[in-house]
Order: sequence, then C-alpha cells, then structure tokens
Amino acid sequence: MNEKNREKMQQHLDNLTKPKGSLGDLEDFALKLSIIQGQIPPKVERKISIVFAGDHGIADEGVSLYPRDVTAQMVLNFLGGGAAINVLSNHCGFDNWVVDAGVAGDTDADGVLDMKVGRGTKNFAQEEAMTGDELELCLERGRDLAARLADDGYNLVSIGDMGIANTTTAAALLAANGLSLDDVVDRGTGIDDATLRHKRNVIDAALKKHGPFDDVYASMRCLGGFEICMITGLILGLRDKKVACIIDGFPVTAGAFLAWRIDREVSEYLFAGHKSKVKGHIVTLEKMGLKPIIDLNMRLGEGTGAVLGGFLVALSAKIASEMASFESAGVSRSDTDEEDY
Amino acid sequence: MNEKNREKMQQHLDNLTKPKGSLGDLEDFALKLSIIQGQIPPKVERKISIVFAGDHGIADEGVSLYPRDVTAQMVLNFLGGGAAINVLSNHCGFDNWVVDAGVAGDTDADGVLDMKVGRGTKNFAQEEAMTGDELELCLERGRDLAARLADDGYNLVSIGDMGIANTTTAAALLAANGLSLDDVVDRGTGIDDATLRHKRNVIDAALKKHGPFDDVYASMRCLGGFEICMITGLILGLRDKKVACIIDGFPVTAGAFLAWRIDREVSEYLFAGHKSKVKGHIVTLEKMGLKPIIDLNMRLGEGTGAVLGGFLVALSAKIASEMASFESAGVSRSDTDEEDY
Repeated sequence: MNEKNREKMQQHLDNLTKPKGSLGDLEDFALKLSIIQGQIPPKVERKISIVFAGDHGIADEGVSLYPRDVTAQMVLNFLGGGAAINVLSNHCGFDNWVVDAGVAGDTDADGVLDMKVGRGTKNFAQEEAMTGDELELCLERGRDLAARLADDGYNLVSIGDMGIANTTTAAALLAANGLSLDDVVDRGTGIDDATLRHKRNVIDAALKKHGPFDDVYASMRCLGGFEICMITGLILGLRDKKVACIIDGFPVTAGAFLAWRIDREVSEYLFAGHKSKVKGHIVTLEKMGLKPIIDLNMRLGEGTGAVLGGFLVALSAKIASEMASFESAGVSRSDTDEEDY
Repeated sequence: MNEKNREKMQQHLDNLTKPKGSLGDLEDFALKLSIIQGQIPPKVERKISIVFAGDHGIADEGVSLYPRDVTAQMVLNFLGGGAAINVLSNHCGFDNWVVDAGVAGDTDADGVLDMKVGRGTKNFAQEEAMTGDELELCLERGRDLAARLADDGYNLVSIGDMGIANTTTAAALLAANGLSLDDVVDRGTGIDDATLRHKRNVIDAALKKHGPFDDVYASMRCLGGFEICMITGLILGLRDKKVACIIDGFPVTAGAFLAWRIDREVSEYLFAGHKSKVKGHIVTLEKMGLKPIIDLNMRLGEGTGAVLGGFLVALSAKIASEMASFESAGVSRSDTDEEDY
C-alpha cells in the first residue's frame, strides 16, 4: 500500500463518529490491517487459531518439571475441546486446528493435522536437534499451510505452541541469534535457583558446542524444535500471502524472530497478542518493534494470549467497516475535532 | 462467600488442565466473579452495555470544544447502531441500552430508555447543578434500573457515559471528594495551556463557591451531573443485587467513586474495563483498589473500554466452567505443578 492509501485509510478512520484518535490502539490495528491487506476498510471475516505441538529432546536434561508425555496428552485434550485454547477460540470466534509438528508419542487421532516431521527432536546437548532435511520439511510444511489458509480465506491467523521444554529451545535459539542468554532464560515460578543455573548451563554449553552458527538456518537445525521451525515457515508464508498473523508467547515469538531474521518485513504482518510472564518474551518482541496488545500476566501458551489479542485486532476491522461517519449520522464536529466529547 | 468457598473455587481453578495460575488475571477475574455470585464456577450468561447520556450546564463556560447538541446527536447515533459502542457491544455479545438521564435536547426516539431527570444540569459555576429532589431521582432511578437488570438475569453490566463537558463535572466531583484537582483535570489532546488553565479555574472557583461539602450527596447536588449520579445509584443497586459491574473511563469512574464513598464494599463488585488516556482516571481507580484490565490508549467513553474489558471478564467464567480437569482429560501433573509446560 502506498502512502496515498495510508492517508486515505487514516481519513476513513477520522471520519467515523468519535474524536480523532480516541479509539487509540484499535485505530492503529485497523490501519496496520489495511496496509497488510491493501484495502480500505480492512476485513477480518475468518479467524483461525493453530496450536503447533512438538517434543524437544532437550527435555532429557531435566529442564522441565513436566513429563514429556504431557505433550501428547495435551494434544488429545485440545481435540476433546477441554484446553484453555479451545474455550477461548470458541468464544472469540476462531476456528481451531491442532498440528502435530513432531510429538514424540502417537497423536493420530481424528482432528489432528498430521505434519509430523519426527518423533521429537534430538537432545541438542548431545547432538544436532534435526537434520537439514528435517529443517527443510518444517519450513516447507509451514509455508504450505500458509498457502492453504490463504486459499481457505482466513484473514487472521493466531499461532500457539505446545511442547515440554519448548522454552529451553526457544531461549537457545534466541541466544544463538543475537539476544543475551541471561535476558531470555526464564526462572518461571517453579524453578529454584539451582534448576535455573542448570537450564542456563545446558543452553550455554550447547551454544559453545554447536556455535558459532553460519546463519539462522544452522541454528535452527542444531537447536530445533520441529514446531518452532514450522511456525517460522508459516509466518514467512503468511507474509507472502499478505495474511495478518498474531503471535502468542515465548516459543512462538522465538519462531517469529527467526522469520524476522530471514525477512525483516515480516514484522509488518505480525501482531503481538499479549505480554507473557515468561522472561525474554518482551525483549524479543521489542527487537522486532512489536508492542503486546494485552498484559494479563498469562504464561500458558497454546495461543491463549494470541487469541485474546487477536479478538481485539479483529474488532478493529469491525470498527473500521461498521461505524457511522459524521456525515451519515448527522453529528457535528468540533472546531479542532481533537477534544473529548 | 466465606473463606472455605474461596478456597474451593481456587481448587477448582487449580484442577483445570494448565499449570497453576498460568492464566494470570483471567483466573483472578473468575475468582472475583465467583465471590460476587456465591457460586462455583461463576456464570456470565447475559451481558449488557448501558450508555448514560446527560448534558452539563458547565458546558456554557467553554470547557469543551464540542457544541452541546452533540450529546443528543450521539444518542440518535447510538440508536442507529453507528457508534463505536454499538459495534463493540454487538461483537462482544453485550445487549446495548441507551439511557437519557438528562439530555438537554429531545431524545424521545424509539429505543431510548427515557429516565430524563431534567434538560441538562444547571451551570455549576453560577448555581447548584441540581435540586435535592433531582439528585434523589437520579439515585432512585439508577437503583430501580439495577433491580430490573437483576430480574432480567444479567450477570455483567457494562457502564458507559456520553455528555459534552462530562469530564469537567467528573473532575469537580473527584476534587470535591478528596482527590487533588491537579491530578484529575485533563489537558486532553485538543486543549491548549490557556484552555486548561481556564478549565481548572472554573472548577476551582466552583469548589470554593459551593464547598466545603457536608457530605458526598451535597457535592453531587452542587456539581451534577444527572447521568453520573444515576450511575452512582445503579452501582449501589447492583452491589445490593450481587451483580458484577464493569466500569469505563473517567466520568463513569467518578460515578463509581461516589458510590464507593457511600459504601466501600462496592469495589468488590466492580471491574475496571480499561485504563483511559484521560488523566485522573487511573488515580481514581487506584483509590478504589481497582486495576484496569486493558490499556489501549483509548479515550472515547460510551462504555467502549468497559465492553472490551468485560468481554475478558466474561471469558474467565467460560474458562472456569468449560475447561477440562487433569483427571477428566487424563493429563499428568508436574511434581510442583507450577512450571510452564
């Protein structure tokens, strides 16, 4: 969208029956959507929430307090409709898909989108998390999914993640790609000082073992995970298809950061659903120039924060297309049109 | 609800398939709703957004850049469905009522709830804004409306305000009731230094003219406005009926503050929808111990921030009633159950 169109969209917003700019960030969201879609006003007719599930070999190092089985168990819970993301997606008007990107256990139940690249990544403390072919497959399947979503007419895609030890992989990826390790290793609420040191040491040693990395792809191959790299592919694909995308917490944002490292324009297509309580999330968002929409002290993942923020982004499109103008409603303007009513 | 029930509701939340507390503020909302309603889990089946419209005589002093006619024009816009509050209420699942609490012009169109106490308050720079009987009527009609809403089965009531010069009245009321005038007089974006000084002087002179006030009721009678005092009555009534209530920006919050001055328990029934850009809003919320749910730099009023925050409060009830438990979903717990997945 050229500058003239941006100006036209701004005028469109300023003609709606409210003091100029009084809907704050909602107006910014509508403007960003309009630029993404190249239309005035923008439309969000179909929304979808996708949870990418994958297992991480690094879980063997005792970096998470949950057993690895929980990843597959939670996939079944997603399919049964009993997880938080199901409840929130339903009530926020998002369709809901679950992708098995690389769960260790079997998830071949009805309703799972089987895009399994492997049965969990390898333990990156010991060896490279995946092969070059596996990485290729992750990126390709992510891009293919983006094409399918665009064909299906989705205007807003919410991305979530589920996988035991995913925050360890995410922290390693970010530290491998320019962020400070101390900024991105999270204590969580359950980890004591000793476990935190252990988690940090595991990552630090792995970075020394595998790094320095020739490029972002090398870091992805060495560290994983299947679902994070598939998210990277999806985001690159959605950018090509000009579909707006809303990201969730720390692991998803790590996937988005990798996409942004590959193509800086990606951030023009991204909305940050929320500010997660996981340390490192906000730092990563700021690097990409993204501001979280809500801050409810959440740290669940699954896309729960993305769906909530995404609901507000979708509302901004409704505002832009359904509000009356001063002229059509016969409402007087102020002299400066910038005061509160 | 006694302490045992609070503990039971907390247990209910902790049994849902997510790490303990990982849904952050959403869990707090569900707990607060549960305490308000005295049931586990809480229910939000019917939501309503009410806009109270009223005119303020103080507008004659040139404290707003909008002509007074805008109040009545906007009421018609609300009825036509073209205002921001209409669009947001529709998509957030709130019924939407418009109350004429005291608009200067005629609003006797179909769909307005006619609770007009007068044709705008008097100019409090010159005389008392309303009579004792008028104040009584405002409070009574607010309380009657609360009873009607409770009878109609509404579980969550969102309160908005529309009225040219309402922020001037709200600032005067707050300053008359213990807040610092400088903390609550807003520059807005359109007011220059000179107009800001004028607005402050008008309020300061009025407080000296009418004050000191014997009690909160005296300040309401002297300063107005009809819709703000009706909001006070509604909030007191909803508290009696044990109905949760979500407040919007500065003028509505001033009405809530007056209710809180009359009965401190009121804040246990209130949610603060958002943090408005209007100066003085957050200070007033903090006095009542309320934390705004969202912060989108909005300053429109009408209940737009309340409806957005209220949607999230309602979602918290859905979470509490629709998520699976660890047992029902067959998902393993962690040892400490406090780590991220």
